[in-house]
Amino acid sequence: MNAYLDYQAAKPVDPRVFDAMKPYFIEEFGNPSSLHLYGYNATKKLEESRQKIAEFINAPSPDNIIFTAGATESNNLAIIGGALRNKRKGNHIIISEIEHISILNIGKYLERQGFKVSRLSVDQYGRINLNKLERLINDKTILISISTASNEIGTLQPIEEIAEIAQKHKVWFHSDAVATQSSVPIDVQKVPFDLLTLSSNEIYGPRGIGALYLKKGVRVNPIIIGGGQEKGMRSGSENMPGIVGFAKAAEIMKAEINTEAARLKKLRDKLIEGILKIPKSYLNGHPEERTPHNANFRFDYIEGESLLLALKDENVEVATGSACSSKTLEPSHTLISCGLLHEEAHGSLLLTLGRFSEEKDVDKIIEVLPEVVRKLRVLSPLTPPKFLEQIKKEVN
Amino acid sequence: MNAYLDYQAAKPVDPRVFDAMKPYFIEEFGNPSSLHLYGYNATKKLEESRQKIAEFINAPSPDNIIFTAGATESNNLAIIGGALRNKRKGNHIIISEIEHISILNIGKYLERQGFKVSRLSVDQYGRINLNKLERLINDKTILISISTASNEIGTLQPIEEIAEIAQKHKVWFHSDAVATQSSVPIDVQKVPFDLLTLSSNEIYGPRGIGALYLKKGVRVNPIIIGGGQEKGMRSGSENMPGIVGFAKAAEIMKAEINTEAARLKKLRDKLIEGILKIPKSYLNGHPEERTPHNANFRFDYIEGESLLLALKDENVEVATGSACSSKTLEPSHTLISCGLLHEEAHGSLLLTLGRFSEEKDVDKIIEVLPEVVRKLRVLSPLTPPKFLEQIKKEVN
Repeated sequence: MNAYLDYQAAKPVDPRVFDAMKPYFIEEFGNPSSLHLYGYNATKKLEESRQKIAEFINAPSPDNIIFTAGATESNNLAIIGGALRNKRKGNHIIISEIEHISILNIGKYLERQGFKVSRLSVDQYGRINLNKLERLINDKTILISISTASNEIGTLQPIEEIAEIAQKHKVWFHSDAVATQSSVPIDVQKVPFDLLTLSSNEIYGPRGIGALYLKKGVRVNPIIIGGGQEKGMRSGSENMPGIVGFAKAAEIMKAEINTEAARLKKLRDKLIEGILKIPKSYLNGHPEERTPHNANFRFDYIEGESLLLALKDENVEVATGSACSSKTLEPSHTLISCGLLHEEAHGSLLLTLGRFSEEKDVDKIIEVLPEVVRKLRVLSPLTPPKFLEQIKKEVN
Repeated sequence: MNAYLDYQAAKPVDPRVFDAMKPYFIEEFGNPSSLHLYGYNATKKLEESRQKIAEFINAPSPDNIIFTAGATESNNLAIIGGALRNKRKGNHIIISEIEHISILNIGKYLERQGFKVSRLSVDQYGRINLNKLERLINDKTILISISTASNEIGTLQPIEEIAEIAQKHKVWFHSDAVATQSSVPIDVQKVPFDLLTLSSNEIYGPRGIGALYLKKGVRVNPIIIGGGQEKGMRSGSENMPGIVGFAKAAEIMKAEINTEAARLKKLRDKLIEGILKIPKSYLNGHPEERTPHNANFRFDYIEGESLLLALKDENVEVATGSACSSKTLEPSHTLISCGLLHEEAHGSLLLTLGRFSEEKDVDKIIEVLPEVVRKLRVLSPLTPPKFLEQIKKEVN
């Protein structure tokens, strides 16, 4: 069995979730739009599921929840739909430099549509600066979109304070909660988000389904037009097995998140402690204000790509760069924004834990990584001669 | 067991499809964007699946296929994405009056964006007129969108001739193939569509997944922006279980469509023959040029809504009006376009058959419907006195 340390890229569906979904593929296949018994049962289950998603984030009502096909679509609906909805009020949007690629690309798209997009910089740990944020707001600002945390370096953002600033200036606050959903509880009545992106797979639900929370009174323009499902904000026949699975995943996560977060934090801290024993290794992201399941490292003189491949040979599955685009050879935009040099960013390794991670997975990487790093450094043209001599000796 | 005659609204997943999908929820959960083994396996399966969808419609290459979250999204991507892509060439689009509600609403949306949309009328059987179509084309026309058939009255459109006209005038031809996918083979090399919408659930695959076929050289603007998946035309992590299920459904349908169509046609003809024995009953749509699984009737003096409810009491599940919006009380726009009066359209009943329909389902409705119709007519204020006397007698 391989050690899987890439939960940020993909999570297996929880078997309890799969069991809950099963009947909705074959036996209970009704369309909520139908007037007969199958349709009635589907409508009932759809609204029960919406209620469970609302409870997961402590939303006042199931009416606050719109189902989408995933987090990327929710981000599009929130930001593009929100921008178009408010274009008479203003044309200025604020995001951070370290948002998920979907949000960065939505920013570029909106600029081509005539909107102005400010990109807030971050400190060395990846935290935004609240004073800078407030100074960026002007009378044309309609939306701030800053994720609850980075899915890459795990750094938590000061979301309560961002929400406060947004409220003070009467600007909508959207947040992509994907990076924190599986290990940090969300309470939309405590933090007054206007819009919040949720993913099903991030909480061990099926892929191809997500949701957008909208605060009471907040409406966005649809980006998928049709039969008027989801209060006209997202058309298309409802993906019932997906919705039922997502709801079950939310129910389980709500019940277990605190225990799970504590367990993951312990594993993560063991991981960090073990890996930082490697000479010239560093933790990326914030040392304390980070998600319980995330550890991101860099190692002088070597590349993340070679690390990933060498670990593959040791049956350890990891990621480099950002979780969703390891295939590009660009260094992580997040690490560059944190002030790392290109070669430092290229030497980074992203380790993410999840519900089915065990202590033996952590032990495995702690055991094999020092020798993997040493070997790569021996081969690297970047390793300084003196250091090379020292690590060459260690081989004997 | 209820007799289910509403396959157009929702289809159960074929158990063979479900078996094929199963491993991709829990064991094989990789993200195709990841560089490790799970990611590699996912990429391989993604491309194999794309190949199967291509084979289903005889597309020359898997590169012609883009996965979406369903037919509504595919229609949006094709028509909105296609219109925006070509806006420098022209701003005129042609659809028919009897398109699916998603296409009708996309038409209204594009009009608000400054496009001109012509809505081609249909004859009493729901067929478009090719001369009228050609006369509507002008030098600003960029796209024609006409479905392969009506999902409501089953009438097949002359798609080969439409494609020929579109080619002659160098206008893109998009078609929503949802109404014919399950019973009429599609060959995109024989009928040169530029864009074709496919749904997974329509061929007994899972919900929440669909595809758009694009002829070589045809590209559309994305409507969901992000990580650049699906050649930049549709971002978001791939819904692997959905994609695998859709591909399996396509493989089965390709192998069985001819046998299945013949079987359905036989059942449908029995249905039509049996039901037209009811006095003052009529078939909606074309008598011959119709999909093998569709039968749509109207009955003088009564309403489809009451029919639906009365049949529910007899454990027969049917639809009234259009399959996707039975909940609205509007009469079917398709039947009105065919020249029916409002009261005639209101009296219509949509019966659709599918892979798991059996002769006993057909027998059941043929058995119960005459008495259901008679009883409703006895109660109806619209029934003329003379006819009322006649049917009252039949009760004894």
